[in-house]
Amino acid sequence: MTESRLIGPVRVVGAGLLGTSVALGLRSRGIEVILADASPTHVAIAVDLGAGRVAAPGDAPQLIVVAVPPDVTASVVAAELAEFPDAIVTDVASVKAGILDALRGAGADVSRYIGSHPLAGRERGGPLAARADLFAGRPWVVAAHDAITYQRAGAIDDLILDLGATLVEMTPSEHDRGVALISHVPQVVASIMARRFIDAPNAALGLTGQGVRDVTRIAASDPDLWVQILGANATPVRDILLAYRDDLDRFIDALADPTAPGARRRVAEELAGGNTGVERLPGKHGTDKRFTIVVVMVEDRPGELARLLAEVGEIGVNLEDLRLEHSPGRQVGLAEISVLPEAADRLTNELAERGWRIAG
Amino acid sequence: MTESRLIGPVRVVGAGLLGTSVALGLRSRGIEVILADASPTHVAIAVDLGAGRVAAPGDAPQLIVVAVPPDVTASVVAAELAEFPDAIVTDVASVKAGILDALRGAGADVSRYIGSHPLAGRERGGPLAARADLFAGRPWVVAAHDAITYQRAGAIDDLILDLGATLVEMTPSEHDRGVALISHVPQVVASIMARRFIDAPNAALGLTGQGVRDVTRIAASDPDLWVQILGANATPVRDILLAYRDDLDRFIDALADPTAPGARRRVAEELAGGNTGVERLPGKHGTDKRFTIVVVMVEDRPGELARLLAEVGEIGVNLEDLRLEHSPGRQVGLAEISVLPEAADRLTNELAERGWRIAG
Repeated sequence: MTESRLIGPVRVVGAGLLGTSVALGLRSRGIEVILADASPTHVAIAVDLGAGRVAAPGDAPQLIVVAVPPDVTASVVAAELAEFPDAIVTDVASVKAGILDALRGAGADVSRYIGSHPLAGRERGGPLAARADLFAGRPWVVAAHDAITYQRAGAIDDLILDLGATLVEMTPSEHDRGVALISHVPQVVASIMARRFIDAPNAALGLTGQGVRDVTRIAASDPDLWVQILGANATPVRDILLAYRDDLDRFIDALADPTAPGARRRVAEELAGGNTGVERLPGKHGTDKRFTIVVVMVEDRPGELARLLAEVGEIGVNLEDLRLEHSPGRQVGLAEISVLPEAADRLTNELAERGWRIAG
Repeated sequence: MTESRLIGPVRVVGAGLLGTSVALGLRSRGIEVILADASPTHVAIAVDLGAGRVAAPGDAPQLIVVAVPPDVTASVVAAELAEFPDAIVTDVASVKAGILDALRGAGADVSRYIGSHPLAGRERGGPLAARADLFAGRPWVVAAHDAITYQRAGAIDDLILDLGATLVEMTPSEHDRGVALISHVPQVVASIMARRFIDAPNAALGLTGQGVRDVTRIAASDPDLWVQILGANATPVRDILLAYRDDLDRFIDALADPTAPGARRRVAEELAGGNTGVERLPGKHGTDKRFTIVVVMVEDRPGELARLLAEVGEIGVNLEDLRLEHSPGRQVGLAEISVLPEAADRLTNELAERGWRIAG
């Protein structure tokens, strides 16, 4: 890694998961970090973790990272801009346009502010869940605007590169429409689907497979945080939900009489459109047509999966992706191994020869 | 495994993924299998795979398994009942009530018919994708009705047990409402979500994370098959979609003015209901609160994941679940290891001591 271009100190306001992870990442690069949080407990934990030192009179941060809940981000950014007139300020909230508007409306010095959003997180929150590597390899959006100079905004770029993230530049509204599409609307769709299970018979839920588990996994997200996110990005989210509802209505109409002329064609077109859309998503999971999946049964005891993967390595096949599925009520899991199509038959045969049970 | 109680021969009609897998599973138990399919190529492939022999005059099957596309299942079952007056007939279609109704309407001898549905499948279809173990550990619903005697239906139970599946008894309409909820509606929801990506800017799609990938993974399913399934189960699917739309409308209304009195509460209640619903799904993935996830960075080269899992075994921690995530544009994957909460800190520390980069 090249030497950091950040001078520091960097002041991190909000010692939760994101703030403490930023602080740990910067400390690992040798940069001085000052920690502040409304909760003295959070600050104390973050200091104990080696994430930096507590704030002191006379602090002169080069850069301030505001990592507080979405609802209070704009007011905390404004306060930081006022208190530290020589500092550049960024924030990490997941909706961007409203914060810039609020700062402008409050007469804050936005020539020293540029918002940003790291696409990273964990199932757990709080400083104890923080990791120096949390942002490694993740996109980190810089929400560009024309009131800050290129030179000043450079401090944000340096921060992002120091933390190993991938810098993505967008306008605030491009960003907000983007996250509405690939994060906020999927959250709503999954939550509404999961609500259907509240009163469902146990027997029906016993038929659950991987498909419905995947569709509804993120329905387990924190409602308090998501109320703030959805409220802050209401217009872009609502626009996409309205288009979603139009499609849903077409499905509902077509299913009212599935034998009516044109009904099957309409359903087929809706489903085919889903094929087209999902193929546009980047990433290796599920929809990736480049790989073939070999399914192997693995006894549910320590070391079995490691033994399987070691043998896959001995066979000389590169594992492109791996997913484990447990069958309810059985002490056997299914390891779904993604490999290049030309390697699948050889892997299947050689694993079977070694005594592995191939389930697909 | 105990000896099979099936006598055979078993006639399998439809040598696709499911039919050929049934045949392979029965052959591995030593049972005679007779194969039939409208496609001579499919039969030839299945015979080559060792799944059974071609049909011949004078065949007297004990049991017939119809594994043809949903649209033609009822007519094929009726033809088999007529052609083999001493055989018990089942089918494996994913919607059940309509088939029984159609058979009754056609005057077929339903005292020898009982429908069933194995909850199993693969991303690929056709006989070449078939596996003797396809049904191992999966639920297999028997759609009970009162026109067949317990003794006759026993042949279906034997089939399911022979194939290693878990027998679940439901009425046809219980089954159809159940799969509408945990399979058919999630398919519609995922497809409509994925349609939103058709015209999306590349920059927005670049922000894609695991959440939206999971929500839309099954949108890659085959439209031809799903048109048949949704058409055959239109009423239960539509009923759930109507309730889904009511929730969606509440979201859309609340987001029209998210600062209006009550709007935040309504959104929070919708999201909290999603929490409640998803917690009811069985299985280890995602929503399972019993486990803590440790995220480890793994270089994308052969043997690295096996080395990691071998060391997890050496540390003496049992891996409850594992998921791999690749970061777009980086030669590094993230292995998400689920372990019991009390083991997480020790695993994290010992892996870090061994030089693994812990990402969360």
